[in-house]
Amino acid sequence: MASWKPLLQAAMDSHAHLKHSSFIQLATLGTSGRPANRTVVFRGFPDASDRIQIHTDSRSCKIEEIKHCPFGEICWYFTESWEQFRINGRIEIIDNSNSDAVKIQQREKAWHSISHKSKLQYLVPPPRLPYTEEPSKDYQLDPSAGPVDAFSVLILDPDQVDYVNLKSNVRWIFTSRMGDSGKIWMHEKVNP
Amino acid sequence: MASWKPLLQAAMDSHAHLKHSSFIQLATLGTSGRPANRTVVFRGFPDASDRIQIHTDSRSCKIEEIKHCPFGEICWYFTESWEQFRINGRIEIIDNSNSDAVKIQQREKAWHSISHKSKLQYLVPPPRLPYTEEPSKDYQLDPSAGPVDAFSVLILDPDQVDYVNLKSNVRWIFTSRMGDSGKIWMHEKVNP
Repeated sequence: MASWKPLLQAAMDSHAHLKHSSFIQLATLGTSGRPANRTVVFRGFPDASDRIQIHTDSRSCKIEEIKHCPFGEICWYFTESWEQFRINGRIEIIDNSNSDAVKIQQREKAWHSISHKSKLQYLVPPPRLPYTEEPSKDYQLDPSAGPVDAFSVLILDPDQVDYVNLKSNVRWIFTSRMGDSGKIWMHEKVNP
Repeated sequence: MASWKPLLQAAMDSHAHLKHSSFIQLATLGTSGRPANRTVVFRGFPDASDRIQIHTDSRSCKIEEIKHCPFGEICWYFTESWEQFRINGRIEIIDNSNSDAVKIQQREKAWHSISHKSKLQYLVPPPRLPYTEEPSKDYQLDPSAGPVDAFSVLILDPDQVDYVNLKSNVRWIFTSRMGDSGKIWMHEKVNP
């Protein structure tokens, strides 16, 4: 386990009563070369790894941005404990074009883990296109069916985690390197 | 006044009881070419403009990042009204090397607007350098003196604002262009 993960888990546990505590800000590099930033929902650590799972609409700008530059930084601020995690890493997209059996299964599992209401968001007209008033549609969705085309999973694989606790005034930088048997994490206490 | 500003002002007013509602996430482009993201504090609209003021330590990474690429995107999520503002624009740094009289005054005004405790943060050892245990220092600060060297002001001048209300499921994109007598804002309702 990555040495920063117990810190993050503890912060999540102590904020479990707050719905917004699973909302994180994901920065990517926009296709114009400018930084982009938006709130997304943390959807867990797949396979008990230290990777971060997020769901998104394949038609959203971030998909194109990540294809262009696969790196991102999550900023996760916990409002009651005053802790911030900045999680930097490479993002993998698992969309409907993926042919890897494990990835297909991962996307299907993710689809079945979300609510019916969340699923319906992937059926509505494409995000950011001009809004046109139209008779409200009754979108049908078979609960047993697999993911719709617009449903994508993002997996951020962290390389570096910058942790700050503004109450205790403590800051740790966690960095990783690839060892013979996987990722190895090191950490250093730095000035806040 | 920019057409998005009343929306933002209303969200701020309705969240005034929550300290964390003035905490925003600022994405910049890291010097490595990867996006960077961190929480900063909104410090107002200077001179009742539509620009966003932030304070930072001149020795923090974001200063070098902004010098390298002056664009940034603020993500501002309001936890109770489920509103998100993504504010994209160019960032100006006002630091101790600035020789413009108006900017010097702006930085001085900003310095005197912050608490004694906030001021002391600019006297401690540089952020992110390795932490060394040292006898706690008694930092002296003359309340009437001007800003210390490490105190910088960032001013983000918005070009585009992407507003989403997740309760009413409404999304507006505000874009600006330069007209003869200043910035002109246009807006479009888009799919959320």
